[in-house]
Amino acid sequence: MLQFLDFFGTAVFAVSGALAAGRKRMDAFGVVVLGCVTAVGGGTVRDVLLGSQPVFWMQEPWYLGVAALAALATFASEQAFVIPARALLYADALGLAVFAVIGAEISLAVKDSYAVAVIMGVTTAVVGGMIRDVLSGDVPLILRQEVYATAALCGATALVALLHLECGQREARLLSILVTLAIRLSAVRWNLSLPVFLSRGT
Amino acid sequence: MLQFLDFFGTAVFAVSGALAAGRKRMDAFGVVVLGCVTAVGGGTVRDVLLGSQPVFWMQEPWYLGVAALAALATFASEQAFVIPARALLYADALGLAVFAVIGAEISLAVKDSYAVAVIMGVTTAVVGGMIRDVLSGDVPLILRQEVYATAALCGATALVALLHLECGQREARLLSILVTLAIRLSAVRWNLSLPVFLSRGT
Amino acid sequence: MLQFLDFFGTAVFAVSGALAAGRKRMDAFGVVVLGCVTAVGGGTVRDVLLGSQPVFWMQEPWYLGVAALAALATFASEQAFVIPARALLYADALGLAVFAVIGAEISLAVKDSYAVAVIMGVTTAVVGGMIRDVLSGDVPLILRQEVYATAALCGATALVALLHLECGQREARLLSILVTLAIRLSAVRWNLSLPVFLSRGT
Repeated sequence: MLQFLDFFGTAVFAVSGALAAGRKRMDAFGVVVLGCVTAVGGGTVRDVLLGSQPVFWMQEPWYLGVAALAALATFASEQAFVIPARALLYADALGLAVFAVIGAEISLAVKDSYAVAVIMGVTTAVVGGMIRDVLSGDVPLILRQEVYATAALCGATALVALLHLECGQREARLLSILVTLAIRLSAVRWNLSLPVFLSRGT
Repeated sequence: MLQFLDFFGTAVFAVSGALAAGRKRMDAFGVVVLGCVTAVGGGTVRDVLLGSQPVFWMQEPWYLGVAALAALATFASEQAFVIPARALLYADALGLAVFAVIGAEISLAVKDSYAVAVIMGVTTAVVGGMIRDVLSGDVPLILRQEVYATAALCGATALVALLHLECGQREARLLSILVTLAIRLSAVRWNLSLPVFLSRGT
Repeated sequence: MLQFLDFFGTAVFAVSGALAAGRKRMDAFGVVVLGCVTAVGGGTVRDVLLGSQPVFWMQEPWYLGVAALAALATFASEQAFVIPARALLYADALGLAVFAVIGAEISLAVKDSYAVAVIMGVTTAVVGGMIRDVLSGDVPLILRQEVYATAALCGATALVALLHLECGQREARLLSILVTLAIRLSAVRWNLSLPVFLSRGT
């Protein structure tokens, strides 16, 4: 089940990378690269920081295959119809939730620290999108946007807390994914945001 | 003492990241992330290049705690008063000096090469700021600006040279920090800069 | 011979980094940094992803020496004459071809996977240029441009295929370099490009 959701999240993130490439009028190669980088970038940085190399997609090449296919399908289908932004928003929220949970679990397997697990969960969930934005020449959305990374933070924290309380692994995963989804979708629905910092210095 | 200065440098760099986030109107989460990335980014890249993973802040979580607190304090205090730019400039110079020395020492402990130690000293001192600028959508200041990275380069070189001459560790550290500070603050005081490259090609 | 070409590719990529720095009016330090990062960035990311740390230029410091010298020579010579863009284009194509072959070979030595070898060949060849563009504040050219990374992809694939067919190592290298050069130079000559993605969504 988690395997299937991981598959799903990889594809959704690749679609978001491909669409960003489209907005910048990149060519077919750029679309595939940006799709793959968005899909596996977060997990790659997580593995490098933890020292788990060769990184995960070298062990299981299907990740890059799924991401490349999703990016190419986006490229092809955009000629035919417009992908509904709202559907993408929901799919992206699910991808975010799944990646946060998977990232935190992988971190716990390597390094026995709750704080590190939460940070690695957020890293897995949001760093791919940050690299996508930097390569597209934009300031990363998640640093400015509505509650996005914060939802991943709450989800990863929920997982770590539930595992600490010796909740079963399946229940902990499910609940953490629901926590992330609830926060993220509420933010989308009611347009919530964190306070913004207006610097007056320099 | 070096431990205290390391603490100080981490906080100062986090403040500079938080202020950059403020200039880009990021939200509270973006401020904390940019503060932390600026504070620990240089050391993280150093550890990854040397292969010392899990990276340092996974071993000693207080680094991220200090950085996050400094970023949040910046966020909060900016509502009340403007942080004096000049004080920040001096504090930043001290942080630069300390990080260059620490980076070079850590490199020497892992890899017995003077050239690598100097490069890792500069990396530790300036890469955090480069990542901050890239995530803020700016061309990294240190590539254009007055003598900044050059001061770190001289400080790290001084440390390596002094240790090679079998100077005591404490004296070597102190002298190298003073070298960096002297060069950096002279550059600020008299507005020194390296020659600029005006390309006429392409 | 490959050692000499590696040397040559490193110098050419450093020149391209230095010229990018010049276009952004960076100072002498920025020119050297951007030259070095462009020259060794791809191989560094390859080594980090594969887990071969300390990275290659820490083992063989001449790489950074060559890159720094080439960047400084660019800086100096630009005051005297304009580097012909066409010569640089040919030299860059050769660097691209050599780096793709070297990257794929190094990957095969560490990890026994053809797919990973091809990706690491492309990574070695193009990531330095991507980092150069990001640090210069541009959207990476290779994501938008004429057939560039695609040439490296074909070259790395040719190498892997030829080695699989038990072709001799020298012949495989030579043929793969010729494949990359032929594709890249044809693209330059006839202005070929991949289809561009025009997003209509969001």
